[in-house]
Amino acid sequence: PVNADRIAEDIDALAGITDPGHPWTRRAFSPLFLEGRAYIDARMKAAGLETRIDAAGNLIGRRAGAKPGLGTILVGSHSDTVPDGGRFDGIAGTIAALEVARSLKDRGIELDHDLEIVDFLAEEVSIFGVSCIGSRGMTGQIPEAWLSRMSGDRTLSQGIAEVGGDPSVLLSQKRPDLAGFLELHIEQGPVLEAENKDIGIVTAIAGITRIEITVEGRADHAGTTPMDRRADALVAASRLVLDIRQRAAEQAKTPGHFAATVGEFRIEPNAANVVPSKVVLLIDGRAEIRGDMEDFLTWIDGEVKTIAADYGVTINTPVRVSDNMPTPGAPVLLETLERACETVGAKHRRMASGAGHDTAWIAKVAPAAMIFVPCKEGRSHCAEEWAENDDIAMGAAVLFEAVRDMDKN
Amino acid sequence: PVNADRIAEDIDALAGITDPGHPWTRRAFSPLFLEGRAYIDARMKAAGLETRIDAAGNLIGRRAGAKPGLGTILVGSHSDTVPDGGRFDGIAGTIAALEVARSLKDRGIELDHDLEIVDFLAEEVSIFGVSCIGSRGMTGQIPEAWLSRMSGDRTLSQGIAEVGGDPSVLLSQKRPDLAGFLELHIEQGPVLEAENKDIGIVTAIAGITRIEITVEGRADHAGTTPMDRRADALVAASRLVLDIRQRAAEQAKTPGHFAATVGEFRIEPNAANVVPSKVVLLIDGRAEIRGDMEDFLTWIDGEVKTIAADYGVTINTPVRVSDNMPTPGAPVLLETLERACETVGAKHRRMASGAGHDTAWIAKVAPAAMIFVPCKEGRSHCAEEWAENDDIAMGAAVLFEAVRDMDKN
Ligand SMILES: NC(=O)NCCC(=O)O
Ligand SMILES: NC(=O)NCCC(=O)O
Repeated sequence: PVNADRIAEDIDALAGITDPGHPWTRRAFSPLFLEGRAYIDARMKAAGLETRIDAAGNLIGRRAGAKPGLGTILVGSHSDTVPDGGRFDGIAGTIAALEVARSLKDRGIELDHDLEIVDFLAEEVSIFGVSCIGSRGMTGQIPEAWLSRMSGDRTLSQGIAEVGGDPSVLLSQKRPDLAGFLELHIEQGPVLEAENKDIGIVTAIAGITRIEITVEGRADHAGTTPMDRRADALVAASRLVLDIRQRAAEQAKTPGHFAATVGEFRIEPNAANVVPSKVVLLIDGRAEIRGDMEDFLTWIDGEVKTIAADYGVTINTPVRVSDNMPTPGAPVLLETLERACETVGAKHRRMASGAGHDTAWIAKVAPAAMIFVPCKEGRSHCAEEWAENDDIAMGAAVLFEAVRDMDKN
Repeated sequence: PVNADRIAEDIDALAGITDPGHPWTRRAFSPLFLEGRAYIDARMKAAGLETRIDAAGNLIGRRAGAKPGLGTILVGSHSDTVPDGGRFDGIAGTIAALEVARSLKDRGIELDHDLEIVDFLAEEVSIFGVSCIGSRGMTGQIPEAWLSRMSGDRTLSQGIAEVGGDPSVLLSQKRPDLAGFLELHIEQGPVLEAENKDIGIVTAIAGITRIEITVEGRADHAGTTPMDRRADALVAASRLVLDIRQRAAEQAKTPGHFAATVGEFRIEPNAANVVPSKVVLLIDGRAEIRGDMEDFLTWIDGEVKTIAADYGVTINTPVRVSDNMPTPGAPVLLETLERACETVGAKHRRMASGAGHDTAWIAKVAPAAMIFVPCKEGRSHCAEEWAENDDIAMGAAVLFEAVRDMDKN
């Protein structure tokens, strides 16, 4: 029910709007970002949508429904990218959503509900250091302090105003009219490709918990200090990394997505002939089931005590730098999406999202769910990121059927 | 036989010649370094020594012996420091050597040999990125390529000229006249203090071998990539760090000093939500017995293959960035030093030096040996570095007796 060529044309056009030296970079708030949006705006208009920028700086294309007051079905994703990545991350979902509107128009299908196609502002961590600005902002979930965050000589508030938003009313945004939200996104993981599935129906977006741990030993001369008289922070931190990996692998085997990764790791003084005195590391934990994260947090608190004792170092009580709950997809929409998959003949499975998405913020105020399409080798946030156009088109078809189904129910 | 107060006075005076914001910094080639040298030069002259700067930029104070042609007894250390450290590292040995000359003068003792007190240029890794410039240079061991090393807009050659050396004849320096060399240095380790010894007689200066290892995994999304589908370079590198520590601890239990430390450790991309793709680490290995280092090198070559296979990462063949042989102290001088300890009543033990020293370079051309005096908690290369003046004075007394012994034999 969708036109795959039209999807490919738009995704390719957006890929052309990039820093040529850093494909496929189109970071939020940049001139390239605005250029990309101008393209999307024009395509929305061509699809018969009435476009606007909301207070949070989201680009929205609207199509009124036949029965005023039934509410709005919102579909979309984001068009900003991380540096050096994102040929499909975000934009595939924005264009697939637009294609739904185009297909409805082509077929002369009128919906009862209002339909809005959204390009959320700054889903990725932006130059202001925070993410999901548009989806948080649309639903009144931006912390007030964020508005004065700086990038260069601009505040986030100014940044939002420059893309056409209205910071003066931002903090009180509400969308009580939302009847439901759907987002298509590339999986950013290897599961669908490995299992030869077309669509992942996202049961939940994993909660993200960031835990900072500081290991303090003693800087000693690497040549002269006997091996049994050292308090080597790197050795203790290495033990911790291995134990976290093992624990995470065990938790991952039980039901519910779970992952824990040490991605940031800094040692001091980082000099060839000095025993490392300090390591600061950051754990990125993801759990579909909150209890799993609670278990992990309890375990890590005990684990650092054991390691501190075993290696003669000091380790602080692990600090929760951030801690978000898992967000389940709306059960009714998961069923709708499953029916839509059956209708278009898509091989599908239920799965959790290990990555955070705008859907998690919209889900706080309205029924929301998302689907994944496969991507090559699970790569994302890099120039190699790739998704087959036929897979995206299949996903757009699922959205199309799901929107029609939502409209009737 | 020495004057402890005079030693304290000089060491305190030199400690005053420092960057006040970064005690006790007096880096080679800096104005502070030259100021320190002017002080030492004046004190050498006051001790009746004839001073000069040799081709390698070493400050030398000379006292002719009664029997020309017997050769030169050389005693000394260095006055330059690392950044933020070195209240005693180097300067204790330079002043102790000077005190030997002063005591000889005070007592009206004439030696048969010529005596030279030396302050070597740039023992520490200097702004030109290399160490032991003076001791290598005095003995024709500076690689020609080093002379064009840059720091800012100066070459090392210019740097040496600026402190009064003569780069034009530097590469052909020889000291066939050296009858023997002695150096006093703080231990920079905890052994003497822990065992309540006054003097360490250095049996050998450990060989230093630096080994670089690159672990390459795959950068994946930390949220979405299942735990069993990762090639996490940090996890593999952590295994390596722990295994190196265990292996080194085992080798340290056999006769002969042995240590291995991972001091430099860098991860990429070092981002919270990305599985680490790469770790580059540097092993600093120290061995008193070359066979121990050979064993370690063989072990590490096999170890990285095992880890690469176990963790699904790629690890290069370990690269020997540098590889120096151990330098034994001249057996005759070790006995001389032992007799001197007995004479002054110093509690002594034989021990290896895990740290590199100028002595290792002089030992290539003449009988050379060194003694250690205790330092607090083994700390060095930091502002907390401390040695008791009585311990330094005891060491100076040992040097005094040893020099007189060498002169007679
Ligand atoms: N979708 C996505 O990559 N979000 C970035 C935040 C995260 O999950 O690490
Ligand atoms: N003595 C000393 O600290 N030398 C520096 C070179 C080393 O041993 O690491």
